[in-house]
Amino acid sequence: MPHIDFKNDLPGIRSALAYSPQTAEPLGVLAELLLRSDEGLTRAERELIATYVSYLNDCFYCHHSHGEIACIYLGGDRELVNQVRIDFSTADISEKLKGLLQIAGKVQQSGKAVTADDIANAKSNGATDKDIHDTVLIAAAFCMFNRYVDGLGTYAPEDMGSYPLRAKQVAEKGYGNHIYAEKQPA
Amino acid sequence: MPHIDFKNDLPGIRSALAYSPQTAEPLGVLAELLLRSDEGLTRAERELIATYVSYLNDCFYCHHSHGEIACIYLGGDRELVNQVRIDFSTADISEKLKGLLQIAGKVQQSGKAVTADDIANAKSNGATDKDIHDTVLIAAAFCMFNRYVDGLGTYAPEDMGSYPLRAKQVAEKGYGNHIYAEKQPA
Repeated sequence: MPHIDFKNDLPGIRSALAYSPQTAEPLGVLAELLLRSDEGLTRAERELIATYVSYLNDCFYCHHSHGEIACIYLGGDRELVNQVRIDFSTADISEKLKGLLQIAGKVQQSGKAVTADDIANAKSNGATDKDIHDTVLIAAAFCMFNRYVDGLGTYAPEDMGSYPLRAKQVAEKGYGNHIYAEKQPA
Repeated sequence: MPHIDFKNDLPGIRSALAYSPQTAEPLGVLAELLLRSDEGLTRAERELIATYVSYLNDCFYCHHSHGEIACIYLGGDRELVNQVRIDFSTADISEKLKGLLQIAGKVQQSGKAVTADDIANAKSNGATDKDIHDTVLIAAAFCMFNRYVDGLGTYAPEDMGSYPLRAKQVAEKGYGNHIYAEKQPA
């Protein structure tokens, strides 16, 4: 049961965003910039970082939501997404992305956990300063989103069929505030 | 040493915000809404929650920056701010704020750590649903800001005289993006 009365029956973060539309706006803009930029990291790489951090934070709603969006960008390869969750070192992804996921995993623990060696390893595999910046901020932002979702006790659908449907909407239309300014049907 | 070349010498989060002005905009809007709203929680209470979470995350730059802003709102009572950092249960603050700080401390660990008892305790001391929402989002947001600051290895001034000066600017002018769109003097 949610910890507060959201006055809506939306799932996951959508209930909190609809409850507080004023803060939903910058959160939506931030998600759009971090997850749908085409500069540097691909959208698939961005969603994989979000999925991995959400999985480490044990946020059921977020790691399934973003895992399904990553899956769309990866041509439906759900097995690859799952391999990134459980052991990215053996996943069929670039060494650059492995280096960035290593940084993201450290950020999930604490910003201070990131070492010069983590950074040097990512750079030696082709990561730019902007890739590293975006990885740190995506990982940090999901430490916020995950806590917002679970700290308020939002409802996560157990019907796994709902996640791919929602993922398709987000992949097509994005995270803009127009999505969050939603009203529940009466 | 910073993990990436920020192309500026600004301290703390300001170096990262100036490096990436596009993402700085929603981050500034979010901080302004969460820390300077006068609806429900006071500005002092909001800054104390930010300070406490930043202290738990061991983010030197953030807990000193926001501690000094809280101090201004509290008429210069730095001792009270420090007592909130180290043991809020014995600080001269309301039972409502103690209940909210308890929730914030749980969010710092994990969203899932917040219990129905934590919520019931805060509510029994007068916290509204909006107070709880704002507390959870402030705590979650500082789990992001702290990781952004330390995950990129930003520079935190050891000259403690710089924090009150900066705090005065923020208390007067806010966190709006106009602050972050700053350029280093040549």
